[in-house]
Amino acid sequence: MFLALPGFLLGSGLSSTPLIATPQSQHFADALPLRSGASLRDYSLSFETYGTLNAERSNAVLICHALNASHHVAGSYAGQANSEGWWDNMIGPGKPVDTNRYFVIGVNNLGSCFGTTGPMHANPDAPGRVYGADFPVVTVEDWVNAQARLLDTLGIDVLAAVMGGSLGGMQALSWTLQYPDRVRHAVVVASAPNLTAENIAFNEVARRAIVTDPDFHGGHFYEHGTVPKRGLRIARMIGHITYLSDDVMNEKFGRQQKVAPTLPASRGSLPPEGTLAPWGGPAALTPFRYSTQDVEFQIESYLRYQGDKFAEYFDANTYLLITRALDYFDPASAHGGDLSMALAKATCKFLLVSFTTDWRFSPKRSREIVKALLDNQRDVSYAEIDAPHGHDAFLLDDPRYMGVVRSYFDSIAKGATA
Amino acid sequence: MFLALPGFLLGSGLSSTPLIATPQSQHFADALPLRSGASLRDYSLSFETYGTLNAERSNAVLICHALNASHHVAGSYAGQANSEGWWDNMIGPGKPVDTNRYFVIGVNNLGSCFGTTGPMHANPDAPGRVYGADFPVVTVEDWVNAQARLLDTLGIDVLAAVMGGSLGGMQALSWTLQYPDRVRHAVVVASAPNLTAENIAFNEVARRAIVTDPDFHGGHFYEHGTVPKRGLRIARMIGHITYLSDDVMNEKFGRQQKVAPTLPASRGSLPPEGTLAPWGGPAALTPFRYSTQDVEFQIESYLRYQGDKFAEYFDANTYLLITRALDYFDPASAHGGDLSMALAKATCKFLLVSFTTDWRFSPKRSREIVKALLDNQRDVSYAEIDAPHGHDAFLLDDPRYMGVVRSYFDSIAKGATA
Repeated sequence: MFLALPGFLLGSGLSSTPLIATPQSQHFADALPLRSGASLRDYSLSFETYGTLNAERSNAVLICHALNASHHVAGSYAGQANSEGWWDNMIGPGKPVDTNRYFVIGVNNLGSCFGTTGPMHANPDAPGRVYGADFPVVTVEDWVNAQARLLDTLGIDVLAAVMGGSLGGMQALSWTLQYPDRVRHAVVVASAPNLTAENIAFNEVARRAIVTDPDFHGGHFYEHGTVPKRGLRIARMIGHITYLSDDVMNEKFGRQQKVAPTLPASRGSLPPEGTLAPWGGPAALTPFRYSTQDVEFQIESYLRYQGDKFAEYFDANTYLLITRALDYFDPASAHGGDLSMALAKATCKFLLVSFTTDWRFSPKRSREIVKALLDNQRDVSYAEIDAPHGHDAFLLDDPRYMGVVRSYFDSIAKGATA
Repeated sequence: MFLALPGFLLGSGLSSTPLIATPQSQHFADALPLRSGASLRDYSLSFETYGTLNAERSNAVLICHALNASHHVAGSYAGQANSEGWWDNMIGPGKPVDTNRYFVIGVNNLGSCFGTTGPMHANPDAPGRVYGADFPVVTVEDWVNAQARLLDTLGIDVLAAVMGGSLGGMQALSWTLQYPDRVRHAVVVASAPNLTAENIAFNEVARRAIVTDPDFHGGHFYEHGTVPKRGLRIARMIGHITYLSDDVMNEKFGRQQKVAPTLPASRGSLPPEGTLAPWGGPAALTPFRYSTQDVEFQIESYLRYQGDKFAEYFDANTYLLITRALDYFDPASAHGGDLSMALAKATCKFLLVSFTTDWRFSPKRSREIVKALLDNQRDVSYAEIDAPHGHDAFLLDDPRYMGVVRSYFDSIAKGATA
């Protein structure tokens, strides 16, 4: 598709110098009060920056991450193959969020497992122990507060834009409510003003799979030298089903089988071919291995692979914390469910993007946000992208999607220099 | 809604004598060859019948069950409160499938766990042991063959109708292909010609939850005195999410919380009310308990309850077997994927019913069957019921749905006596 749209090719930065990412860490000695009433005594945030902060400090863009991502948003680590950031197709030199123009910040959220203070770190209230299940419950609002403190240390008062997809979009939206004076633009992709019951239900099943894994040990598995990998695998498999659309799953995997056709071991009881067998004759020749526990279909193989990979690197307590932050996010709840009233606090300009086949955070949910902002006469652009990939689309290279974001960031840049 | 439709009330049999169900069992000494090439040496089927077989033996209706149901289709057990059959709203005296008119048969499928030979029964090839994971893999076609043998023992050559919902609908469809001369009508509700990749994916996650439960012991948990309840619970929770529509879940549970509002234990670090708190002020007063592992939302409570209940009565190996039968069913596969060619064998008349909000077996899938039958000039009625309840709708009392089935069975009766 790119070939048919040379404008995108020219602007895609494919020929520019690769972006080298360098992870950094910032320690905070002041306690962070949390929405739960608890507080984090001290903590560190992992982050990365790309591009250069201009003299006016007006070109900073904060990228908020979703469930399993991190501060490593763009570029690659020097000497590490396949180490591209999770939104490297979107962010970099010449890309839609152009790091030749913007100073882009990625930050790993509190409670996550990629360097930022989280459940596997030392618990200051229990000397010699790690937090485990005792890590305080964090919310989207808490993350935004921690991100704001990071911006303070970087000398950034006002963001040119805050941007995120899915749970990251919730953070972007929350920024506009918690710090309306510090955000000029919010880019909210494939997100929602809160989770539906179905969303919460999927989160809950994933959490139960983790919590009931005997290797979870009430969240203190680190001390037992175990990892609740069974639970993490199940959680990830469920997640992957909800990230894809039914159509794209059928297209990618359909009913394709994993194994080469083999005949059943015993054929003695089958009638001669061509006769009307009670099981439908020729159907008896299909290549099933007739197993309940082995992989039979390609989709099973794909899901198991995704689950196995995830269980190797992701932290179980982090999974619980982040899905709870998703469940709790609901800015309208403090206003009797009136989202328009809740969003009245936001003063910045908005771009919202949704994808037609996203059934996890459907376009309807983005339209709720758009409507609530319009009720407040806010400046809102909205793009509903007809993409087949479901929720995953927000991480993929749809040229219309990339084009919309590119245009929006072009217009931000023009506004900033005007 | 019934009050507005007195015709249904009058015909609903509410005032008739309660139907008493009596479970029976039939033993078969002849081996049953299975599609896998294996065979079952001997076996028993649990079944129930309601109504009276007429002198012409022409009024028999076979009901096929779906995943977790049984031969107990209608009526109640004498002296047992709340023991109604799983389709008691549909089948009984004066009900849409009227047992004053039809002789209705419910049968528990091979490999199930309600009396019919299954994984928890003695394995004749391993004296002193139960089958466990060694129970042979069964398919929809195998079940239909076993059901046909049961009809032989009951002296029924030709069914007035075969009927089922979901996986039961697949059996009804398979009847028309395996035994076209023995079926006059097929009623296929909320079903599909095969599973989509997404359907298989949900089955696979449920199976992995069961198989990776340490209490599963490779399927031989009976000998270890354990039950893989953790896995069964997760499997059932996933199932329940897919049985309901997003809308009905929002309507029934929404974002309602389980616990009464309580303030966080420590409020020390919160700013005075009315100031702009960094977490959005009033939102800090929402009643979250800030827990990752406890029930917070009503939907979580509902799912856990369903999971717990299921784990008490359902067999883990049965779950694997039945979901695999679902995965494998695909009559078109023996015809290069051409469903029209596959359904050419069917000669009976059909009623298909689907429900608009059923995303597990969507109307689109029923329409594929309808189209394939029409390609063969078959007599097909099709009703797409606008119901909010998702896949579950096939078990619920929608008056239009009940009316369609009632009318269809009325017309069968007229045809039989004409």
